Amino acid sequence: MIPEKAKRVFEGVLFDVYQWPQEMFDGTVETFEMLKRADTAEIIATKDGKIMLQEQEQPGKPPFLCLPGGRIEKDEEPLDGAKRELLEESGFVSEDWSLFHSVKPSHKMDWSIFVYVARDCRFVQEQHLDAGEKIQIRWVTLDELLDLVDSGQLGWIEQDFRVQCIRAKYHQSTKEEIRIKLFGEMLK
Amino acid sequence: MIPEKAKRVFEGVLFDVYQWPQEMFDGTVETFEMLKRADTAEIIATKDGKIMLQEQEQPGKPPFLCLPGGRIEKDEEPLDGAKRELLEESGFVSEDWSLFHSVKPSHKMDWSIFVYVARDCRFVQEQHLDAGEKIQIRWVTLDELLDLVDSGQLGWIEQDFRVQCIRAKYHQSTKEEIRIKLFGEMLK
Repeated sequence: MIPEKAKRVFEGVLFDVYQWPQEMFDGTVETFEMLKRADTAEIIATKDGKIMLQEQEQPGKPPFLCLPGGRIEKDEEPLDGAKRELLEESGFVSEDWSLFHSVKPSHKMDWSIFVYVARDCRFVQEQHLDAGEKIQIRWVTLDELLDLVDSGQLGWIEQDFRVQCIRAKYHQSTKEEIRIKLFGEMLK
Repeated sequence: MIPEKAKRVFEGVLFDVYQWPQEMFDGTVETFEMLKRADTAEIIATKDGKIMLQEQEQPGKPPFLCLPGGRIEKDEEPLDGAKRELLEESGFVSEDWSLFHSVKPSHKMDWSIFVYVARDCRFVQEQHLDAGEKIQIRWVTLDELLDLVDSGQLGWIEQDFRVQCIRAKYHQSTKEEIRIKLFGEMLK
């Protein structure tokens, strides 16, 4: 989305800024600006009919509820980044990964979010948290997840997945589709 | 949300970048980074039981459907910015404005979106478009709006309003609440 001719005018810790001259509809030229940030992964990790949530604290913020996930490193495949983040943040692994969807949330930012499903997770080691993370794991049913999203208590999730949860809360066949994606055909 | 002690390290066309030293849970210090951008307004403008949409083109992007709106200027009240944007982009005014809600869409950005309802709009002058805008006005019913949001054709709207539209699509009493907010008690 950032044109080839754009120049990086700032390199930050999280965000880089790019600018380029853009011709307008009337022939005049204006400076256009876009950001670049590292792609991120969010993981819908399941086990025994339940979904993993995190009660997370970060320095200088009130505690919040979210899905496991984080930044994908340079030269890391999105799926590998998702596997690494799940293991670091929760100590769980899965042998059954699939892409739920990927989205570009902003017109003004070169940034993709990859949402994965990791089925039948199992615990293999203790969490390895960054100095800026405090994470408690909590498992909820699909109905509990939909209630948390619908009530706004689980608001900091990828927005297209949030929308699907709201639809599923009020539309039975959407809920069954999501149930199958998360748990397979067997669990009803 | 950006701490007082933060320093502006970059000033861009759309985005400014701020950094500050943040103490981690283990006592170490890391550089934290946040962005600042101008607050924006989106307007749900109504007339004769219908809602105004824009078919918009901007340089270097495929055409897209959205609500009227835009950036609030420095030293401009959000409501005044919303009135100005509606008039510039559509030529319509309203004497019946109310705040639908306001949201801060990102943890990492000092940015608010104000969503307003402008009832009983009337046309007073031609559009005054920027050199980077081509806008066609289109009026839809609430049911058509909900279908456009649900099908993803109207995706670039404020996300909490998008979620409310999805809920309304599948939940009759939410739809009636929205109908009253947009059109008043009279229209059913």
